[in-house]
Amino acid sequence: MVPAQSVRAVAKALAPLLPDRTPVIICAKGIERGTKKFMSDVIAETVPGAVPAILSGPSFAADVARGLPTAVTLAASDGKLAGELAQALGSATFRPYHSSDVRGVEIGGAAKNVLAIAAGVVAGRGLGASASAALTTRGFAELMRFGKAYGAKPETMMGLSGLGDLLLTCSSPQSRNFTFGVNLGRGQKPNAIHAGLAEGVFTAPVLLEMARERSVDMPVSSAVAALLAEKMSVDAAIESLLTRPLKAEA
Amino acid sequence: MVPAQSVRAVAKALAPLLPDRTPVIICAKGIERGTKKFMSDVIAETVPGAVPAILSGPSFAADVARGLPTAVTLAASDGKLAGELAQALGSATFRPYHSSDVRGVEIGGAAKNVLAIAAGVVAGRGLGASASAALTTRGFAELMRFGKAYGAKPETMMGLSGLGDLLLTCSSPQSRNFTFGVNLGRGQKPNAIHAGLAEGVFTAPVLLEMARERSVDMPVSSAVAALLAEKMSVDAAIESLLTRPLKAEA
Repeated sequence: MVPAQSVRAVAKALAPLLPDRTPVIICAKGIERGTKKFMSDVIAETVPGAVPAILSGPSFAADVARGLPTAVTLAASDGKLAGELAQALGSATFRPYHSSDVRGVEIGGAAKNVLAIAAGVVAGRGLGASASAALTTRGFAELMRFGKAYGAKPETMMGLSGLGDLLLTCSSPQSRNFTFGVNLGRGQKPNAIHAGLAEGVFTAPVLLEMARERSVDMPVSSAVAALLAEKMSVDAAIESLLTRPLKAEA
Repeated sequence: MVPAQSVRAVAKALAPLLPDRTPVIICAKGIERGTKKFMSDVIAETVPGAVPAILSGPSFAADVARGLPTAVTLAASDGKLAGELAQALGSATFRPYHSSDVRGVEIGGAAKNVLAIAAGVVAGRGLGASASAALTTRGFAELMRFGKAYGAKPETMMGLSGLGDLLLTCSSPQSRNFTFGVNLGRGQKPNAIHAGLAEGVFTAPVLLEMARERSVDMPVSSAVAALLAEKMSVDAAIESLLTRPLKAEA
């Protein structure tokens, strides 16, 4: 997998080799630092002749390779093309649902990595399955708010590339972001943990900046960003979430 | 915990002891067989002087008892009363979010038990974490559709008593419904497994009947009902979900 921060370089190298109007299916998840651009925008800039599409959803490579059932979202602005690509790539066990909401799919793919770090912290700190379910649910609520502010369809955020990938990433030690959070929750300093491909570490500050620009309330992601920046301890971050005023759910 | 099928009898016994206008907070989850009534309707019938409220959400008793952080939904038709009850019951670690959508809360609490059986089957059959996340996501989509057809607010279905409880129930061996599904997935016959308090076993046929009455498509719940009625094998049920035509996500 190409990390989000390397997509521009890889795309530049590929650009001269691609015939015009070639569909390019992006599998990287994240937001480019500095530019705050999503991957489809990076592709549009670096390979202007390409037709960007995006594939995202709950699919550990090992599960797909073993032929276990997997369902994902495949989006392209041209919904008809998305449907054709889904038919071409689908198999008896690999099921792409198609969509025209490219932005929604990339928002889900990027933001869930930040929330997965929070879920890892809850697990690493030993807060129990009920707390983890509550955190994932409140995290999903902020994903919905962020998506709405940036033009995503609610159905996409509730679908495989949004909720589906969030669930997988927030619950499995196979997820690099979750594991990073587990180590944080166990008391390791952010700088002492190898971030590796824990994309959420890079996404968190950019996501928060974008949330602030459109006044989106994201308490869980904010707590993650504060933890990563060592502005808050794990226990203070948990306390900050538990002492918010009790309020109506919606 | 009082199982849903016993709520009427318990409420009848309590009725003479309750002063008029006493808020009665229901913690049972399910639909009454035969009458197809939700718990708040059963209370309204048997204790007409009571004010029915409902508490539901991801909260294993063991987690609550240990003082681990827990967040749930507390609903009453009178939203102000719901807020007061939430304040009265809330503590530093037990956080009730209040709501006026009683019906939405009870739909989530009942339907998630059926979906948890499906998640258990996926785990028991060894289909992997990606398949489980996809199934939970598609299950959540049918929960949303059912809720909409029966007057629930989408925010409630996406909240702690809907999505939150679904996540907990679909992922933990502590859930009786999930465990029942695991045994099914491992090849045991439904009648050979002690249903005990696996409420979803009783809810499935009623839920499906109600879905049919309002033309709600619920493929995952239908597969569970077919498995329970021994009309389909586990592998045929999985096959039925994997061979649905590929389609748009929304």
